[in-house]
Amino acid sequence: MDELRQNIITRDWVIIAKGRTDRPDEFVPTKKERAMLPAYVARCPFCAGNEAETIEETFAIRDEQGWKVRVVPNKFPALLPQRERTRKVSGVFRSMPAVGIQEVIIEHPRHDMTLALMPVAHVANVIRAYRQRYEAIRQDERIEAIILFKNYGEAAGTSLHHPHSQLVATPIVPNQFRIRIEESIRYFDDTGECVFCRTMGEELASHERVIEENKHFVAFIPYAALSPFSVWIFPKRHASSFDEITEPEIESLAPVLKGVLARLHVALDNPDYNYSIRSIPTGERRTDYFHWYFTIIPRISKTAGFELGSGMFINPTVPEENAALLRSVDLSQL
Amino acid sequence: MDELRQNIITRDWVIIAKGRTDRPDEFVPTKKERAMLPAYVARCPFCAGNEAETIEETFAIRDEQGWKVRVVPNKFPALLPQRERTRKVSGVFRSMPAVGIQEVIIEHPRHDMTLALMPVAHVANVIRAYRQRYEAIRQDERIEAIILFKNYGEAAGTSLHHPHSQLVATPIVPNQFRIRIEESIRYFDDTGECVFCRTMGEELASHERVIEENKHFVAFIPYAALSPFSVWIFPKRHASSFDEITEPEIESLAPVLKGVLARLHVALDNPDYNYSIRSIPTGERRTDYFHWYFTIIPRISKTAGFELGSGMFINPTVPEENAALLRSVDLSQL
Repeated sequence: MDELRQNIITRDWVIIAKGRTDRPDEFVPTKKERAMLPAYVARCPFCAGNEAETIEETFAIRDEQGWKVRVVPNKFPALLPQRERTRKVSGVFRSMPAVGIQEVIIEHPRHDMTLALMPVAHVANVIRAYRQRYEAIRQDERIEAIILFKNYGEAAGTSLHHPHSQLVATPIVPNQFRIRIEESIRYFDDTGECVFCRTMGEELASHERVIEENKHFVAFIPYAALSPFSVWIFPKRHASSFDEITEPEIESLAPVLKGVLARLHVALDNPDYNYSIRSIPTGERRTDYFHWYFTIIPRISKTAGFELGSGMFINPTVPEENAALLRSVDLSQL
Repeated sequence: MDELRQNIITRDWVIIAKGRTDRPDEFVPTKKERAMLPAYVARCPFCAGNEAETIEETFAIRDEQGWKVRVVPNKFPALLPQRERTRKVSGVFRSMPAVGIQEVIIEHPRHDMTLALMPVAHVANVIRAYRQRYEAIRQDERIEAIILFKNYGEAAGTSLHHPHSQLVATPIVPNQFRIRIEESIRYFDDTGECVFCRTMGEELASHERVIEENKHFVAFIPYAALSPFSVWIFPKRHASSFDEITEPEIESLAPVLKGVLARLHVALDNPDYNYSIRSIPTGERRTDYFHWYFTIIPRISKTAGFELGSGMFINPTVPEENAALLRSVDLSQL
């Protein structure tokens, strides 16, 4: 099963090389035990009771017991709203003041919770907070792209254990967004179809790589997954911008997202991971060619010089086998 | 000094955000002491004396004492030469047998050497081995791109301490290569100039980010460096393919490459790093628009969900300050 595969959406190539698992420095699913965390940590700025440690919240979902999900400005932002979006071009050197918005979505009042183990109804509240902030921030005309993402664990780039996600709103369209949108336009021109809808249709038909599916969403390992156990979650209804998500769709996304994270939690023993929501730049909204989606990347393999020098990847596992393993997880043990 | 910068060559945007260094989970130059290695390790397949542990060599540079640099096929390859380059397209699923060539360049007979500390004349031999293999492998008509790279240290993706580099020859042009070449063609069309030559000229004129320079090469921190202390080394003479390098140019590249690695070794206390050589796909050779170069990336910061979800980066240091620090290193202490 050694082959090269090309992702039709990103045009990236990956080497699927299962034979390499006997290499000395090769991928092994980490079996570390994450230390049990306490429910409350006095010096954690995100724990319920420590609200004074954060900047004033921009949004919250509350009930009679208090807040469930809370959004605050990032206390250490790289981008600041109090700046002008002015481009400076001097020869080959191009710059702009670091204008933008950065927020933190505190996913739960308790320090020791994680999305994989939260009730589905709570995960839905986290997604509602994402949508509310996305809708609110896109009103700022200086913002061209909104990236919602989560860093879970040290290998994923965070040392803060309290469950949280982040939002970064940038005053430019990242080059990678433009490249992928151009590809999706080309596919639409050539076929009259959205490449994401088409891919989803073929993944559902083959079902080999599908992990979770319900009325509005499907989760699958991409055919040309760049790294082990990467998962994409697509909305079944064609929509380009994340904030087009409807209330029934949020209720459908929550169990799929939680289901995928719970399967990864069991199969890979609580791995570090990143996820992000890929959405159209804010200047566009409804298009025939682009389709928003969720991408989840467990951080269990390293990128090295080959990846950095080529943009290609080597995946030492087989997507179909990853999917079969995740489907076989017994979630009743959680 | 918080700003966004765009690299004119890659079109990537980076957030230069020095203010974030007081973040709890932020970049700190690692000050770890690398364990002293022995000169010879009985179970190391790359140590002089253990040649029987490797596959038969494809190239070596020898003197009366024995080999100086030695090239062998990768014992655990993902790509194999005994395969056909045939594309398979089935709906959205595209694949090809994993055909290609992977070799290991053993840089020194001794286990405890590293390029940063080797004599310049030895570094020149390593580059000669790169060129010889590049020239030889490009003759294979199934090969479309050759990636030469080095993984140094565990954060850079290797657990093998013996000094070595790698070569991966692929039967496809990586998408990232195509994107960058298209950009370079567009720049050439619009200006009649190579964007790399133009960038080098402006970097030399400003000199703010230049670290090393001699007759044929210049090393600098890119204006829009994606991560701390990334370095580019450009040949001054316009050439698209690495194997166009001449013998006088090899003798000029060796002290610049060694100089950069030695400065990083001292300034960052022997950091893990990757480097790679970016060259035109093998199907082309002489072009007006593309320019080969060396890219060196110390692995001292982590990529997280923002980078994975946008292709943008946050650099918590300032390129001009990185360059000033590297220039100020006293190499006499080595």
